[in-house]
Amino acid sequence: MTQAQHILSIRTRGQGLHEVTREVAAWVAEQGIGTGLLTVFCQHTSASLTIQENADPDVQVDLEAFFRRLVKEDPSLYRHTMEGPDDMPAHIRGALTDVSLTIPVSGGRLALGTWQGIYLFEHRHRSHMRRLVLHLAGG
Amino acid sequence: MTQAQHILSIRTRGQGLHEVTREVAAWVAEQGIGTGLLTVFCQHTSASLTIQENADPDVQVDLEAFFRRLVKEDPSLYRHTMEGPDDMPAHIRGALTDVSLTIPVSGGRLALGTWQGIYLFEHRHRSHMRRLVLHLAGG
Amino acid sequence: MTQAQHILSIRTRGQGLHEVTREVAAWVAEQGIGTGLLTVFCQHTSASLTIQENADPDVQVDLEAFFRRLVKEDPSLYRHTMEGPDDMPAHIRGALTDVSLTIPVSGGRLALGTWQGIYLFEHRHRSHMRRLVLHLAGG
Repeated sequence: MTQAQHILSIRTRGQGLHEVTREVAAWVAEQGIGTGLLTVFCQHTSASLTIQENADPDVQVDLEAFFRRLVKEDPSLYRHTMEGPDDMPAHIRGALTDVSLTIPVSGGRLALGTWQGIYLFEHRHRSHMRRLVLHLAGG
Repeated sequence: MTQAQHILSIRTRGQGLHEVTREVAAWVAEQGIGTGLLTVFCQHTSASLTIQENADPDVQVDLEAFFRRLVKEDPSLYRHTMEGPDDMPAHIRGALTDVSLTIPVSGGRLALGTWQGIYLFEHRHRSHMRRLVLHLAGG
Repeated sequence: MTQAQHILSIRTRGQGLHEVTREVAAWVAEQGIGTGLLTVFCQHTSASLTIQENADPDVQVDLEAFFRRLVKEDPSLYRHTMEGPDDMPAHIRGALTDVSLTIPVSGGRLALGTWQGIYLFEHRHRSHMRRLVLHLAGG
């Protein structure tokens, strides 16, 4: 078994889901590892990760809308408000979704289901540069 | 260190928690790996994974009821409705729970706590055949 | 590649976030593994794990308050009440957050972002002794 690591930098364009499947799969394919385990780790607490259906873009719109209803951007609810009304809700949305994903690699490719895509979930309104750490171990 | 992979196919019987601890533990025991890390990955976006108390079956009923209250099956809330009123709620419930679990293996067995069981969480009303990818690395 | 495991026992002091970054990082540093993957696994279903901002303590207060609003400690909502009014809500809060975290190790250190801390999230009101299994694989 061997391993490899890589930093994937992604510029988001505001609140919502940004698909990164292609970038992640391309790096995995370059490593020449047939069977293994990929970890994607998000180095931020106001953006996170999720695996969602990649067929109908409405799924992404509905998911974002659900989180906006569930975690109100209402400063009267929070003490931590100095970084803006969307910052504490971003931390909560991060806790409810995933900071890391582990995905088996089989036949040199991610063993994702047919309709699964990997998404960086931006929780802030403004564009941000986000860093994902990719770790692959296998042989 | 060596590794092994396996596909576990599970037929669910409608919305709710389906315990898979026995099937997962049996496959781990067959691999002859004393110390390692098991990953369970769910290849679907309308079913997911969770670790819950396995002592009182009421816990499973209460958990299912909580998610039904939190994520309404009300088509007026969603754009993505063509696959049925339970499909978009299923994707949201998937985002709130786990698509993958990583569990240490120690002494050849899953290092679960006394009351922990591994559950496949079906979010659709109808029975489905679900595929879990098991990955074990260790020595 | 080699691997190591360790049990980290933590006494919590009631509901809320308890930072364990220092204890986890210290164990990782002792293993002499430059590049690898750390898994933290919580052996309980009424406490869980999360990575959150470690700069402003108000974030922890707001996160706890959000979960208290979202998952009511109201026995009329649950069947599973015999272990106290905070037990079933604890299981639900566990399902919504993380039972395990996987964090890449780079240069012998956890590849956490600048503001990320690892927290044990206690969901019961009383103090508990909690067991975290640490697994590190790398080389």
